[in-house]
Amino acid sequence: MNIIINQRDFLEGIQIVNRAVSNKSTLPILKGIYLETVKNRGLKLIGNNLEMGIEYYINAEIKEEGSIVLPAIELSNIIRELPSAAEISFVVDKDLYQVDISCLNSDFTLKGYQADEFPQLPDIEDALKIKLKALNFKKMIEEVKISTSTDQTQPTLTGGLMVLHEKNLSLVTTNTYRLAYSQMEIEENFEEEFKIILPGTTLNELHHLIENDIEKMDIFINNSYVRFNFRDIIFISRLIEGKFPNYRQVLPDNFKSIVKVDRIELLNAVKRVSLIARLDSNVISIKIDQDIMSIDSSSSEYGKAHEVIEVELEGPEQNIDIDANYIIDVLKVLDDEIVKLLMISPLNALTIKKQSDENYIYLIMPVRPGS
Amino acid sequence: MNIIINQRDFLEGIQIVNRAVSNKSTLPILKGIYLETVKNRGLKLIGNNLEMGIEYYINAEIKEEGSIVLPAIELSNIIRELPSAAEISFVVDKDLYQVDISCLNSDFTLKGYQADEFPQLPDIEDALKIKLKALNFKKMIEEVKISTSTDQTQPTLTGGLMVLHEKNLSLVTTNTYRLAYSQMEIEENFEEEFKIILPGTTLNELHHLIENDIEKMDIFINNSYVRFNFRDIIFISRLIEGKFPNYRQVLPDNFKSIVKVDRIELLNAVKRVSLIARLDSNVISIKIDQDIMSIDSSSSEYGKAHEVIEVELEGPEQNIDIDANYIIDVLKVLDDEIVKLLMISPLNALTIKKQSDENYIYLIMPVRPGS
Repeated sequence: MNIIINQRDFLEGIQIVNRAVSNKSTLPILKGIYLETVKNRGLKLIGNNLEMGIEYYINAEIKEEGSIVLPAIELSNIIRELPSAAEISFVVDKDLYQVDISCLNSDFTLKGYQADEFPQLPDIEDALKIKLKALNFKKMIEEVKISTSTDQTQPTLTGGLMVLHEKNLSLVTTNTYRLAYSQMEIEENFEEEFKIILPGTTLNELHHLIENDIEKMDIFINNSYVRFNFRDIIFISRLIEGKFPNYRQVLPDNFKSIVKVDRIELLNAVKRVSLIARLDSNVISIKIDQDIMSIDSSSSEYGKAHEVIEVELEGPEQNIDIDANYIIDVLKVLDDEIVKLLMISPLNALTIKKQSDENYIYLIMPVRPGS
Repeated sequence: MNIIINQRDFLEGIQIVNRAVSNKSTLPILKGIYLETVKNRGLKLIGNNLEMGIEYYINAEIKEEGSIVLPAIELSNIIRELPSAAEISFVVDKDLYQVDISCLNSDFTLKGYQADEFPQLPDIEDALKIKLKALNFKKMIEEVKISTSTDQTQPTLTGGLMVLHEKNLSLVTTNTYRLAYSQMEIEENFEEEFKIILPGTTLNELHHLIENDIEKMDIFINNSYVRFNFRDIIFISRLIEGKFPNYRQVLPDNFKSIVKVDRIELLNAVKRVSLIARLDSNVISIKIDQDIMSIDSSSSEYGKAHEVIEVELEGPEQNIDIDANYIIDVLKVLDDEIVKLLMISPLNALTIKKQSDENYIYLIMPVRPGS
């Protein structure tokens, strides 16, 4: 391989595929980035940690074709420190599996690995295909990824369930103490319900990689993998096998009280009360009586906090004890000025919805007094 | 105590004295901030970890005098989250050693400690006094604090030597592998040399607290303590006891070669070479031959780096092996466009000076080949 490549393009490409590079694999080659010249397309970069893989193309002037795998951290450090937007000469010695990187007065030799030992991304054949508005999907991911579990003994809960049914795509996550559900309309119509579980890291990386100027995304799904195409990025993820809990049966609908409240006011009040709550069990008590919501917490060692905000209540007065972080997370992620809190009793979940639409549902299980 | 205090002033004061609050003391009261009303001055705040103490005054409307000690982390978190610049009512219950903090719709009770159990800052009597330009002193600290040792078995090297002699104040730090020396003129004249050792943390905190709009500073020194007065801050530090190495005898003056080089160009080149150097022993080889400086490093596992920059050399060609970080640190801290490298041989220290004046000297001991 002998190519001329622009520092800025190269660095951007490295940073994109780097998100799928393993940093703790025992197989050294998986800590590397695969590079290959492709006629009329430029330089192909791949990062692949076997759970997740990213392929990306950048422009390059190809003088001689070839391929190599280079250690990702060292390659990215070197390219980052080279003069911004300068032309880089990148010449591979295919016998020594090393590259000579020259740029103005800088000259690096970096040792790598044989390209054909690198695991290529899997083909996804016989795939089901969906077209999406990428930014809507990004927002959905943001709204649900807060509720994934970190408990590795229940792998399905560490991911997000994606359900395709009729003209709807929905994402669901739960750690059993809270649940987030978000849905959007799609063009395709699935008469039979189709479900997969996406790993939590895939949700996080997708959320990061979908930039705000990206409009369209294609999704391809088979039994083991899902592929996302957007921009010049191909993002492939393994699916989580197993059964996701039946979320429908926990979604309440017989609400007794509906509270409308200013999202930012509630967020700031809960954040302040949580300063005391987190010194103990992180539990806050919410009480709504007529137009007043009071939020309280106390710590035997440090003291107590009390906040009051004005709300609009339909239905009887209510009170509930919940984990402060669970409500902070959702209030941070929503955009609406006003949110709705829906309640049945102190022993039922607190449900949070947007004021604007019914596409989002967030449940928080109550903490039982004394538990 | 019953006072009204502005959120912004209070938070700023807390953040200043917080820098002297212990976060790992076994004595809980030392993790607290001492607060006391002082007639005609407002609210006095003190943080004191026994090594270092800071006293600061903020405006407050005093309705009833009093004092208390409150846990610093919790107090600072609460005040930070209250509405910006709002008026806070701060009422101490002197029997329960707790305070009621109210602000708009927020109400906190925070438990604290009895004020008279808090260690007050030491008086510094019979002190020697110096007046300084604060910003010059800040720059000197910045230039030398890079060379303090982190080895706690040699306590004097973890600090900085301050020498007062004739009309000069100088600071010296060394970890025995490198040394930094910086001096400034003062108005006072010390016929006899006077030396103290300031703790490294004191240098760091002073550097942080001296803001860019501060002009004057008074320093008071006795045998055990030093006090810095600037702005409305009183900063007191214990001194390190012991003997600092005789730095004068290691300062070379019989230089054979002087190299003038662009500081930023050299910094960027060394940073790039250090990407390879740090994968091994962090050693870089510098070679100056006529108008060309080359910088090299290699790692048996990863590869090698080679940089070339143009310089101006007076005297014979030179080469030396040094730790990359030692030269990066000093090049980052100087402001000059051009710096001077002064050399004798590969076995003598590399000396770095500013082009503009002789007030600063930085030495790097060479790494012997094969060591």
